[in-house]
Amino acid sequence: MKAPFTSLAGFRAVFETLPERDSAAVEAATARNEQLTKPKGALGRLEELAIWYAGWQGDGRPELKRPQVAIFAGNHGIAARGVSAFPPEVTVQMVANYRAGGAAVNQLCKVAGASLTVVELDLDRPTGDFTEVPAMTEEDLVAALAAGWEAVDVEADLLVVGEMGIGNTTAAAAIAAALFGGSAGEWTGRGSGVDGAALEGKTLVVAQGLERHAEALSDPLEVLRRLGGRELAAMAGAIARARVGRVPVILDGFICTSAAAVLHRITPAALDHAVAGHVSAEGAHSAVLKQLGKEPMLSLGMRLGEGTGAIVAINILRSAVACLSGMATFAEAGVSAG
Amino acid sequence: MKAPFTSLAGFRAVFETLPERDSAAVEAATARNEQLTKPKGALGRLEELAIWYAGWQGDGRPELKRPQVAIFAGNHGIAARGVSAFPPEVTVQMVANYRAGGAAVNQLCKVAGASLTVVELDLDRPTGDFTEVPAMTEEDLVAALAAGWEAVDVEADLLVVGEMGIGNTTAAAAIAAALFGGSAGEWTGRGSGVDGAALEGKTLVVAQGLERHAEALSDPLEVLRRLGGRELAAMAGAIARARVGRVPVILDGFICTSAAAVLHRITPAALDHAVAGHVSAEGAHSAVLKQLGKEPMLSLGMRLGEGTGAIVAINILRSAVACLSGMATFAEAGVSAG
Repeated sequence: MKAPFTSLAGFRAVFETLPERDSAAVEAATARNEQLTKPKGALGRLEELAIWYAGWQGDGRPELKRPQVAIFAGNHGIAARGVSAFPPEVTVQMVANYRAGGAAVNQLCKVAGASLTVVELDLDRPTGDFTEVPAMTEEDLVAALAAGWEAVDVEADLLVVGEMGIGNTTAAAAIAAALFGGSAGEWTGRGSGVDGAALEGKTLVVAQGLERHAEALSDPLEVLRRLGGRELAAMAGAIARARVGRVPVILDGFICTSAAAVLHRITPAALDHAVAGHVSAEGAHSAVLKQLGKEPMLSLGMRLGEGTGAIVAINILRSAVACLSGMATFAEAGVSAG
Repeated sequence: MKAPFTSLAGFRAVFETLPERDSAAVEAATARNEQLTKPKGALGRLEELAIWYAGWQGDGRPELKRPQVAIFAGNHGIAARGVSAFPPEVTVQMVANYRAGGAAVNQLCKVAGASLTVVELDLDRPTGDFTEVPAMTEEDLVAALAAGWEAVDVEADLLVVGEMGIGNTTAAAAIAAALFGGSAGEWTGRGSGVDGAALEGKTLVVAQGLERHAEALSDPLEVLRRLGGRELAAMAGAIARARVGRVPVILDGFICTSAAAVLHRITPAALDHAVAGHVSAEGAHSAVLKQLGKEPMLSLGMRLGEGTGAIVAINILRSAVACLSGMATFAEAGVSAG
């Protein structure tokens, strides 16, 4: 569906009237959960997740049948600054790998029973080097937000967004530092595998970006425009679209969560429909999750991007929903309650 | 297949010549993993898990298609001592629920694509009250070990064992205390939901059991016989069968892990084919896992038993295996390596 905005002001307006979760569905799911044939609370976090999902699906006995994974790819001006262990051409090569079915995301989507949407964002036109200029013009940013918005299948019953973009942990670190404060060093990590002098150089690039744009970082969308990238903006647009359509979202790692954090800074309610799929090995991810108040479902030392951590979490959510909706009650099963 | 033992001495003999994992498959999987289209190590724990699985499956590019879940149910003499929030008749009622498809394990097996085997162990004949007598005779113990052994489908490519038995966290606490030392209080927890005076009473029952059998607890199988239960013994028998047949195992919660710990005390190599699916909300579970040197895949506050935590972990292992075996290499995909 065509995005309902053609300007940043239009995108901002989206957050003025956000739909609530369905409180009747939450009540029905909560009541049902209490009667299921298990000790109270014995499914732990699965019980919370199922009730959360019921609320956003608007069904006290929901199903999870059609998860969508949307991967956005963008190229970054700062990739030329040696911030990644991989050369910039890997972005377009990996997009071809997604289309050919050879990447991690393809295998994981099969296991999760998820559809995969791959969106390339002007790969031949990297963003500006944010140590010198804003990464994007306002027009670029709006186009990327709209591309994300339009990629969401609102008939899906769950959304995972992921990314590919050589250099994008550098952009995510700059965004996180701009939104949450602290030094470049606190938010900059190894990404796809830099260390030593290369990690110092990456940290310096983040610090230079923060300094270059210091006067303009109080507005979260301006942070995204100046320090972000097209795939980060598209993830933000997709998460916003899901929020408006009440499609539940599982957040992935550091880059995805940093993009989501931009929306959280517009209004915390923007992420009420989202849970954290995992905590990445990229050190700063746990700090961003803490800022958002999100507890990760998994902690497996993953740091691949492509939505991979969140996709692994899909079957945990599906397990939670299956228990809530499929289990017999004490009365139905003739089991003595405790 | 008929168990190859008819005595405890026969069961002990199983551990004298255990097959190794296939080191050629481990090497092949390790080499393949290095070439896949992702930054080195970026799938974190998934990479280790896939290589571990390859070794036990004897295939450097393995599949995970036929997981088996086997649930064992037993009744406990100590259940009459008020150690559970539920009455003893719930064991047989829950077995009926498993057969009717209404329990958590049924829903989770569907999501995990796993077969479910339910084995009732003399439910009309509870074990002895271990505060007074050994829980089982040697004949009972051997029969339960054999029932577990024989329940394993060696054509399956993964085994999860689970349990149902009102009173069995009390038995597990007594086993863990006997194997690892420490006071009854350190190993006794809320189980299906006791607290206050009931938890104090449960702790006292464990302490009485440890005292009653103190002179005989240096032999792990004697610990199992005196303080355990039929479903714990059957789980131990099933895990041993999988070890001999090189079927990889995902361990579940406190009760399953305590049963497995008996084998570990016979020889640590007995659990080389096993990983920990989750860490339970039952407090002492993490201490048992630490003793076994197993890092849990999930920490979701679950404490239901029935194999549920391990079953949720199946799709994580399947995800790991799918990436190892399904991803393209850098060369195949034409992606520049870092």
